[in-house]
Amino acid sequence: MATEPDHDEHSAAYQRGMDELRKHLGPMADAYIQKIKALAPEFAWVNVTFPFGELYARNVLDAKTRELCTVAALTVQGFALPQLKLHVEAALRCGASRDEVVEVITQMIAYGGFPAATNALMTAKAVFDSDLSTDRDKS
Amino acid sequence: MATEPDHDEHSAAYQRGMDELRKHLGPMADAYIQKIKALAPEFAWVNVTFPFGELYARNVLDAKTRELCTVAALTVQGFALPQLKLHVEAALRCGASRDEVVEVITQMIAYGGFPAATNALMTAKAVFDSDLSTDRDKS
Amino acid sequence: MATEPDHDEHSAAYQRGMDELRKHLGPMADAYIQKIKALAPEFAWVNVTFPFGELYARNVLDAKTRELCTVAALTVQGFALPQLKLHVEAALRCGASRDEVVEVITQMIAYGGFPAATNALMTAKAVFDSDLSTDRDKS
Amino acid sequence: MATEPDHDEHSAAYQRGMDELRKHLGPMADAYIQKIKALAPEFAWVNVTFPFGELYARNVLDAKTRELCTVAALTVQGFALPQLKLHVEAALRCGASRDEVVEVITQMIAYGGFPAATNALMTAKAVFDSDLSTDRDKS
Amino acid sequence: MATEPDHDEHSAAYQRGMDELRKHLGPMADAYIQKIKALAPEFAWVNVTFPFGELYARNVLDAKTRELCTVAALTVQGFALPQLKLHVEAALRCGASRDEVVEVITQMIAYGGFPAATNALMTAKAVFDSDLSTDRDKS
Amino acid sequence: MATEPDHDEHSAAYQRGMDELRKHLGPMADAYIQKIKALAPEFAWVNVTFPFGELYARNVLDAKTRELCTVAALTVQGFALPQLKLHVEAALRCGASRDEVVEVITQMIAYGGFPAATNALMTAKAVFDSDLSTDRDKS
Repeated sequence: MATEPDHDEHSAAYQRGMDELRKHLGPMADAYIQKIKALAPEFAWVNVTFPFGELYARNVLDAKTRELCTVAALTVQGFALPQLKLHVEAALRCGASRDEVVEVITQMIAYGGFPAATNALMTAKAVFDSDLSTDRDKS
Repeated sequence: MATEPDHDEHSAAYQRGMDELRKHLGPMADAYIQKIKALAPEFAWVNVTFPFGELYARNVLDAKTRELCTVAALTVQGFALPQLKLHVEAALRCGASRDEVVEVITQMIAYGGFPAATNALMTAKAVFDSDLSTDRDKS
Repeated sequence: MATEPDHDEHSAAYQRGMDELRKHLGPMADAYIQKIKALAPEFAWVNVTFPFGELYARNVLDAKTRELCTVAALTVQGFALPQLKLHVEAALRCGASRDEVVEVITQMIAYGGFPAATNALMTAKAVFDSDLSTDRDKS
Repeated sequence: MATEPDHDEHSAAYQRGMDELRKHLGPMADAYIQKIKALAPEFAWVNVTFPFGELYARNVLDAKTRELCTVAALTVQGFALPQLKLHVEAALRCGASRDEVVEVITQMIAYGGFPAATNALMTAKAVFDSDLSTDRDKS
Repeated sequence: MATEPDHDEHSAAYQRGMDELRKHLGPMADAYIQKIKALAPEFAWVNVTFPFGELYARNVLDAKTRELCTVAALTVQGFALPQLKLHVEAALRCGASRDEVVEVITQMIAYGGFPAATNALMTAKAVFDSDLSTDRDKS
Repeated sequence: MATEPDHDEHSAAYQRGMDELRKHLGPMADAYIQKIKALAPEFAWVNVTFPFGELYARNVLDAKTRELCTVAALTVQGFALPQLKLHVEAALRCGASRDEVVEVITQMIAYGGFPAATNALMTAKAVFDSDLSTDRDKS
């Protein structure tokens, strides 16, 4: 029978995941994971080690392209606006311009329809209007 | 900068994942992973170590309840019939009866509508009609 | 504690459901339900008595408008092509023209995107090309 | 190589789109498009010229039937409640009664399940309860 | 032609449905149905008699397993957070522990992705933090 | 009242759309549109002029990034495998490597779950195995 996994936050996998997470989410990365960990430690562990420690850590695609792909996916899913907000911020942090983020969302009209894309556009606008947004287009 | 993950198939995480995968999918587990690995080694690695090495390996829920929950989820998603087929087989292997599988799918009419549930029912029927199905109801 | 429901196929609810089902699906209605009943009698019972015995039997909307709405819904869901085929046939049987069916599917580009609408259009085409299609546009 | 599209708001396509948009959305049409245009001019242009200037402007289906189909689609999608609100208002404006709108949403239980239909029903209720609702049932 | 269904709230079907509904939703069951009935009596009738009077009333699966399957389905759908809240409460009322609810949601990462599962986790947390939550883990 | 749109295939909008379509889909572009046009001329017109004549024709993003975003979106939608096949081919034609396509699909595990990503991976494999695939990785 399987033994249960044990989780070492000093392991290379966890540290690599936290490094990636901070690269994408910036100063909010640690608070984001702590909030999940307080309720569900297993969920927090896989959130750090799997998408960030494994998928995002690979060098096949640059961080900006990855974030634009994630923006595309969250746009057509329609229900994931809190996560879309995080990834619009992450896309800007990883070098995408506001125009590029808006362009991906606009392209998604063709794949997910206007309602999904309109809600995504309004979510991106809320990020742009907040202080959190760092955008190379601004200056 | 993050170093890329390296993958050791002799690690505890991978072995625990393969053990779980074989418990749920039976004799087809190894071939299933090999097919993915030939095309995309990273995808195969996370498929073994994440859902099976992490999620399914925990003792909070028994394997039968987990599989019925997965049947419920795949039913309402609607598009995942190849995976539903695998998990109907896995549910039977983990101790669910055919009647229980059909009952979960029928319950999902209320959450995902008739089209999704009907396609799931026909997928379950195809498993029951095949030689692969092992069912404690039969004898 | 609740007693289990018992199902009388001579009840008004069941007969009303079968009448509606035959009105919408035509000669294939009985075979369709028998196929489901052989595997899952509960599923077949609710399929007859709920959408057809309850929802479609009400006089608030005419059958053609109901079927066009169902075509719209199945188009944007994307995964329900076998059911879309049935309801394109039902729409034609209830008085919709081929042009009206194609128009609804085309309108759905705006709500579900091109991939979902394209697959729906090809499904409608398959119905139009088959002998089953009865269309008031043809003569 | 492709030249970029240029957008003339005095073109027949744009004017036709704005006419349709005002027919369906009423007095809020212009403000709706201006809000999008301020952020993403391309998005606003295609929103006017494509669904409204092309799809809704065709005479194959009447405006009421189109709006009921859109209500059906947005109901089963589940995530598009802001757009469902707009289209419940538009359905009433195009001649549908409140009972017909509720009937379409109720019919969608069978295709998208109770959660999606319940949320749509509550959205319709919010429209009916507001001053914006114009309903031929009321007097 | 079909006669319209008539609805007797003293019928066995309706009473059986209300009994089940109260078993799963507790003291809020009656208010929940009254709210829907005020707007759409047909919707309320099928909500009582179909999922609760038919599906949940059958003895094939116990109430706890049914509720965990519903939690799984609502998690991957992503858009049904008000209903997920109701069913997390119902799962606790039917004997599931908080850990089991969190475990099902965590397992759903593998089937519906992180955004859907994260939103479900936060919804469960809101239930746990409220006075409504009755949990056998607490004492 | 709105006049119906008229469609001139010699217009700049249509020509720009066909140019883009050929750039992305290659030699199959014309046959693809003809097949749709034979059944539904309006659908074919908007398919050429809207996503390709408008969205893809803009210079804000390069064609490769656009196609990777589309691959991401179609992967998480789950039901759009025929369109995913087209866009995997288009991604390769626009300069993406096979590894980059597989990487985007693998990243989508985190947003759409394993079933959707596995079906996308198998679709990509079918493209790679066919003669249609042109890949800069191969030589």
